[in-house]
Amino acid sequence: MNTSTIQSKVKIQDARLDVLLKRYQVIRAFTDKLCESLENEDYVIQSMQDVSPTRWHIAHTSWFFETFILKNHCPDYQVFHKRFNYLFNSYYNAVGDQHCRDRRGVLSRPTVDQIYKYRSYIDEWILVLFDKCRDKLTDKVLDIFEVGLNHEQQHQELMLMDIKHVFSCNPLKPIYKNTEINVSGNPPAVQWIDFKEGLHEVGHRGEGFAYDNETPAHKVYLNNFQLASRLVTNGEYKEFMSDKGYSRAEFWLSDAWSLLKKEKWQTPLYWEFNDGEWWQFTLTGMKKVNDHEPVCHVSFYEADAYARWAGKRLPTEFEWEVVAKGVQKTGHFVEDENYHPIALNSENDGDPIKQLYGYVWEWTASPYMAYPGFKAAQGALGEYNGKFMCNQMVLRGGCCATSVSHIRPTYRNFFMPYNRWQFSGFRLAQ
Amino acid sequence: MNTSTIQSKVKIQDARLDVLLKRYQVIRAFTDKLCESLENEDYVIQSMQDVSPTRWHIAHTSWFFETFILKNHCPDYQVFHKRFNYLFNSYYNAVGDQHCRDRRGVLSRPTVDQIYKYRSYIDEWILVLFDKCRDKLTDKVLDIFEVGLNHEQQHQELMLMDIKHVFSCNPLKPIYKNTEINVSGNPPAVQWIDFKEGLHEVGHRGEGFAYDNETPAHKVYLNNFQLASRLVTNGEYKEFMSDKGYSRAEFWLSDAWSLLKKEKWQTPLYWEFNDGEWWQFTLTGMKKVNDHEPVCHVSFYEADAYARWAGKRLPTEFEWEVVAKGVQKTGHFVEDENYHPIALNSENDGDPIKQLYGYVWEWTASPYMAYPGFKAAQGALGEYNGKFMCNQMVLRGGCCATSVSHIRPTYRNFFMPYNRWQFSGFRLAQ
Amino acid sequence: MNTSTIQSKVKIQDARLDVLLKRYQVIRAFTDKLCESLENEDYVIQSMQDVSPTRWHIAHTSWFFETFILKNHCPDYQVFHKRFNYLFNSYYNAVGDQHCRDRRGVLSRPTVDQIYKYRSYIDEWILVLFDKCRDKLTDKVLDIFEVGLNHEQQHQELMLMDIKHVFSCNPLKPIYKNTEINVSGNPPAVQWIDFKEGLHEVGHRGEGFAYDNETPAHKVYLNNFQLASRLVTNGEYKEFMSDKGYSRAEFWLSDAWSLLKKEKWQTPLYWEFNDGEWWQFTLTGMKKVNDHEPVCHVSFYEADAYARWAGKRLPTEFEWEVVAKGVQKTGHFVEDENYHPIALNSENDGDPIKQLYGYVWEWTASPYMAYPGFKAAQGALGEYNGKFMCNQMVLRGGCCATSVSHIRPTYRNFFMPYNRWQFSGFRLAQ
Amino acid sequence: MNTSTIQSKVKIQDARLDVLLKRYQVIRAFTDKLCESLENEDYVIQSMQDVSPTRWHIAHTSWFFETFILKNHCPDYQVFHKRFNYLFNSYYNAVGDQHCRDRRGVLSRPTVDQIYKYRSYIDEWILVLFDKCRDKLTDKVLDIFEVGLNHEQQHQELMLMDIKHVFSCNPLKPIYKNTEINVSGNPPAVQWIDFKEGLHEVGHRGEGFAYDNETPAHKVYLNNFQLASRLVTNGEYKEFMSDKGYSRAEFWLSDAWSLLKKEKWQTPLYWEFNDGEWWQFTLTGMKKVNDHEPVCHVSFYEADAYARWAGKRLPTEFEWEVVAKGVQKTGHFVEDENYHPIALNSENDGDPIKQLYGYVWEWTASPYMAYPGFKAAQGALGEYNGKFMCNQMVLRGGCCATSVSHIRPTYRNFFMPYNRWQFSGFRLAQ
Repeated sequence: MNTSTIQSKVKIQDARLDVLLKRYQVIRAFTDKLCESLENEDYVIQSMQDVSPTRWHIAHTSWFFETFILKNHCPDYQVFHKRFNYLFNSYYNAVGDQHCRDRRGVLSRPTVDQIYKYRSYIDEWILVLFDKCRDKLTDKVLDIFEVGLNHEQQHQELMLMDIKHVFSCNPLKPIYKNTEINVSGNPPAVQWIDFKEGLHEVGHRGEGFAYDNETPAHKVYLNNFQLASRLVTNGEYKEFMSDKGYSRAEFWLSDAWSLLKKEKWQTPLYWEFNDGEWWQFTLTGMKKVNDHEPVCHVSFYEADAYARWAGKRLPTEFEWEVVAKGVQKTGHFVEDENYHPIALNSENDGDPIKQLYGYVWEWTASPYMAYPGFKAAQGALGEYNGKFMCNQMVLRGGCCATSVSHIRPTYRNFFMPYNRWQFSGFRLAQ
Repeated sequence: MNTSTIQSKVKIQDARLDVLLKRYQVIRAFTDKLCESLENEDYVIQSMQDVSPTRWHIAHTSWFFETFILKNHCPDYQVFHKRFNYLFNSYYNAVGDQHCRDRRGVLSRPTVDQIYKYRSYIDEWILVLFDKCRDKLTDKVLDIFEVGLNHEQQHQELMLMDIKHVFSCNPLKPIYKNTEINVSGNPPAVQWIDFKEGLHEVGHRGEGFAYDNETPAHKVYLNNFQLASRLVTNGEYKEFMSDKGYSRAEFWLSDAWSLLKKEKWQTPLYWEFNDGEWWQFTLTGMKKVNDHEPVCHVSFYEADAYARWAGKRLPTEFEWEVVAKGVQKTGHFVEDENYHPIALNSENDGDPIKQLYGYVWEWTASPYMAYPGFKAAQGALGEYNGKFMCNQMVLRGGCCATSVSHIRPTYRNFFMPYNRWQFSGFRLAQ
Repeated sequence: MNTSTIQSKVKIQDARLDVLLKRYQVIRAFTDKLCESLENEDYVIQSMQDVSPTRWHIAHTSWFFETFILKNHCPDYQVFHKRFNYLFNSYYNAVGDQHCRDRRGVLSRPTVDQIYKYRSYIDEWILVLFDKCRDKLTDKVLDIFEVGLNHEQQHQELMLMDIKHVFSCNPLKPIYKNTEINVSGNPPAVQWIDFKEGLHEVGHRGEGFAYDNETPAHKVYLNNFQLASRLVTNGEYKEFMSDKGYSRAEFWLSDAWSLLKKEKWQTPLYWEFNDGEWWQFTLTGMKKVNDHEPVCHVSFYEADAYARWAGKRLPTEFEWEVVAKGVQKTGHFVEDENYHPIALNSENDGDPIKQLYGYVWEWTASPYMAYPGFKAAQGALGEYNGKFMCNQMVLRGGCCATSVSHIRPTYRNFFMPYNRWQFSGFRLAQ
Repeated sequence: MNTSTIQSKVKIQDARLDVLLKRYQVIRAFTDKLCESLENEDYVIQSMQDVSPTRWHIAHTSWFFETFILKNHCPDYQVFHKRFNYLFNSYYNAVGDQHCRDRRGVLSRPTVDQIYKYRSYIDEWILVLFDKCRDKLTDKVLDIFEVGLNHEQQHQELMLMDIKHVFSCNPLKPIYKNTEINVSGNPPAVQWIDFKEGLHEVGHRGEGFAYDNETPAHKVYLNNFQLASRLVTNGEYKEFMSDKGYSRAEFWLSDAWSLLKKEKWQTPLYWEFNDGEWWQFTLTGMKKVNDHEPVCHVSFYEADAYARWAGKRLPTEFEWEVVAKGVQKTGHFVEDENYHPIALNSENDGDPIKQLYGYVWEWTASPYMAYPGFKAAQGALGEYNGKFMCNQMVLRGGCCATSVSHIRPTYRNFFMPYNRWQFSGFRLAQ
């Protein structure tokens, strides 16, 4: 390598450093912004096993930078509190034991104040690292740093999902944010868009950040299929309900039917029938169910049952991805500050396939599995995605609680088929 | 009744009003004092089903005065918040539905601030009632008011028990109060005090406050018995442990043995073996187990097993009561601010039976049942005690977390035989 | 002791031997008779944890004689099968480990044939013992032998309770015995019989067999009370049901109310509402509920709730016993072969208190506890009764599935307050 | 269609009738043969929820022919017992309600004798149908009849799996069949066989029976892969165990690790460590673990963990199928009457890939999902496979309890990833 190449390398490196530090500050600030309306008491509640207290998210995202960046790559770094590794490690066995997940809600200490001190402490040391120890910040370290940024964005979405569940359990129905949601949308009838069979490449290749579970890029063979031009709406879902969809075993997977019976599911999560009308709990308070909005907070089981009732099916994750790669990443994201999926407007923007990105995560028919040739990252970060590749289903496209900068066509989200507290909906295929 | 009798009646009534209002203020202030060291976050945690968040206790004790006094007897009283009756009713079905007991810990709202506002609001209206509506305060109403005072004292003790459990679940082991406990006590050897068989009256009769479950006074026939002069100590309990007490089925009731196996009990609650020594979690931090202190946080099952191991038995509640009626009510109560049972000092104070009051609640061999001729109070307050008269065992004497003014020889506390988070110990009989 | 005393002692001993051997044969034959109508497959089912397969009862009652008599006192006895001690020990920890109680129904082997071989083998050795080794049969050994006889009678009743539950779980509703039950009874109105307060002796004293839990005899003081002249009937219980008894929290103990909600209790066990009428499953098939029969298969919780609804209470075990000691032991027992409690006939037999014995076990208000000065038997048999003295309630008087020779005024049966598969009913007191 | 075609069609039809009736008789007789060694009591036990009593299998396989053939296509058929549809329907909601799956073991009636009468009754009516009503037996009906034959073969394997589990729960360890298993096998070292990437057709096409879940045939793209020449052996699996495989979280999926901790898994199912050696319970009694036999009764979780430990992975179901289509269907099946997977003999039979068929079912890395364009059968039979397409993993190749005539390269078996009571093992890929 000659000098000029080295210099250019250095410059690129410098540029990457600056960009990533800037993104760090923006993302960390956004976490703070999401908590603006919370009281101290709101930070500590765990309303079910899947939910983590807000406070835990605040600490855990800082713990991530502490554990994978500062402890390993910042020479003078002093650990803030020696028990925090135990308290705020989520599931990385390689990094040590963890406080039991379903006991996160029994901790009142450290207080929210202390946790924000911890957070500030980490922020200051990150500045020190980027300022004084730039030589430590090799590409490999920056790659991990970038995982940390994406990790925090994921937890921002989890914070919204979780606080929604927490508030929904309170008979006082607290309001996260007083916002008027635009209800004027009126989506056009579904159109069936044709795609031809053939070999396609799926997965992430080349530049830009992606999680390990999006790799390696590989070939899949897809048969002819048709994809619905938009998401299924509340209005359509009500027809399924009216047609006794929740009482007819023929539409339901065997496991789904057992669960539905046991849990007495009759509606999507957060719906209530009051005074002759359907209402739903949202982060902006109790609202009447708007027929034009995409149905949300349904499980894979419900999406699948609806599809059978409709004589259709859910798309596979690869059908979705192949289509999405040809579509602009426009949609309705967390930056719109609605914290709820709004209705699609009927105006024609030229793109026949709508709502692929944002609004609600789309359940696919695909179990979450490793791609051929998948290698989990080395060390503890290898536990980030790989060990969940069983019993879960893939969702695609992001939602109204996702950052637009966080999503891409190859992005694979995953939840248990019975989970419903995420902002999840679906579109049909055939 | 001639005029002079009426006047004297009025005066007594006035005096009672003044005394009760004064007690109200003292007791309410003591609740506040107990919370001095707590952070807002501490108020919301429910670490197991039996535990209530501190915040809930604060609100519920105010709800009690609102529901049974202000709503019924204060003409202008305006309800502070219409959902609080649902949120802060404990178990009075006659007063309406309740928020599910084991879900008290999923509520972040109302915030601690709001709850203290509620509390102040009630305090102000009580003042109004005692000031402006003295005519409403008949003896019958004041009787209920007095139940409210005792009720609040019970919850003060529950607050200490509950926050101890909450803190014990936190790996950081928060300290409720930094206090040096007097460890110089050194109890003398047990002496066996004789009591002769015969008919005795037990239960409450005459003046002074008592709960309905202490009535009516009635006769019981007691056989000859001997009562130990003091409580069983940690040191003595360790001998039982060393003798494999927790592994030998012959000492345990059948239900106890099943539970012990399932829960893997090996020690009293809050004990840990670290670095070759026994430690226990206390409200004043982790302390070495002091052999001279009474053993505490044992279940009835453990007390009973110890007694069999020792070739003795637990006293019945009536044996205890008959003896206690002849003894001064001195002991170690919450006013000493140790929040932990200290060791008995060996000095002779002339009373052969020691530690009957305070220190730890004493498990008795008596199931908690209605006295012959028992009538539960009318209305919702009839649910206070009566509906628990099954499956529980009686404890007597109060503990280091009980107010001295709250206890009396006829007082019957009761817990499930497997409960251990209360300050419970025991003495032997034979 | 002079010679004549010794001789008379020998004679009494001989007589006792003969009587006990005769009783052995009668009781063992009765066990066989109770199984006459069963198919091999019926012997192996465990329909819930409390139920044991018939086969297990057949084997366990033989195991009892093997373990406590033959192994210890018959010199040449050879164990039939070395694993049977593990398989057929119920709960005697002192005798060794046991097969898990709730797994008795997963065993198909030993087959029923093999178990009857085991049973015959024990019978033959008992004959050998009584024939060849009379010198071994000291009074102490015969006392244990007599426990064995009573033990087998208890299991005869359990066999009926258990097979009733097993058959009731089968949609084919098998019939244990085709018998016409006499339905002509028509009980007179309840009369309230007065008893005066005073000191009474309760418990067993003197000659005749009794379990350790009936001793020692001791004094109790009873207040004035009135006892109902007969048991509560189905007709009366239906009034409680019609008055929404199962939906009104005010009648129920707190634990009862939780259980009722969870288990969705609406009727006594085995009742069904079909075609506008109440039916009940019995050992003689599905029958219409007869208003004149005593209500049966109710838990303590239901008995207690009914009593509160009626403004009465349940009698204590001592009230029952004191009254029963003055009444003839006549009633309706298993020897009548109805396997169901028939209706009381209204004819006056001169005794104002009726149905104290037989028909149904009567729930009392008394928790099952040790009598003052109680000492459990030495060794494994000490586990027979003593270790269950917690969380259970006493029932008195025997039932239609009890042998008349098995019952006496001091007899204490005990079940958990929620148990209902035994033939249990109740009478009121006030 | 001209006359000659019609005639030839009729002849083919006749031939098919004869062949299927013959197969019916052979398969039904084989079911009987499998039960030869059972006692009546063995038929009724359900040792866990997944296990059905043998008696239930005997009845259910007859119910299948009654429900889908006789009731619909045999004009004079009279139902044997009107409640049997309720008792012996497994999970076909379209055919009516079912007796609760986990309560199959509480039924003692109908007795085994009655069930064999039912079975004979069905056999006689099938003969009537094939004799008198040949015109009813259209190809469509015969297709369903053929499903019934395959269905019965599946239940034959289930009967073996289930009775093995039942016997294993019995401390007497009953022996299903006294057979000497050939232990001389000594498998050669694993070889890695190369397969080139490319497009392949998978799934069933053309003649011959297949389940709906094997269709439609479709194209998949496979990358380069290597497949192990034989199954993983007990000896190899022991190395994983010795290397603390069950204690190292890094090898385990997240759900697997939770389950392993909860269930305390340390070995494959049926292994015990006695007197310094590994033993396993088999249908032919307790045997020392033979290092040369394929490891068996492991869950998907264990297979997957082993693969990670070995630095390999499990093959996908399509990798397996593509390879299997080129290999002779030879192996070790139920017809060998070992009821246990024997060791591979090292002799070279010319085929580099061994043990693809028979021995043990091979776990694959593939979740059980619908093939592109999959349509479930119409009506109740559509519930046969389709509604289980979630949360399960595919296994391939059959086992020592499978009939050789039942298996084919496209055959997809499926179990929950935690199931281990089937004869399941695995081979590695990379």
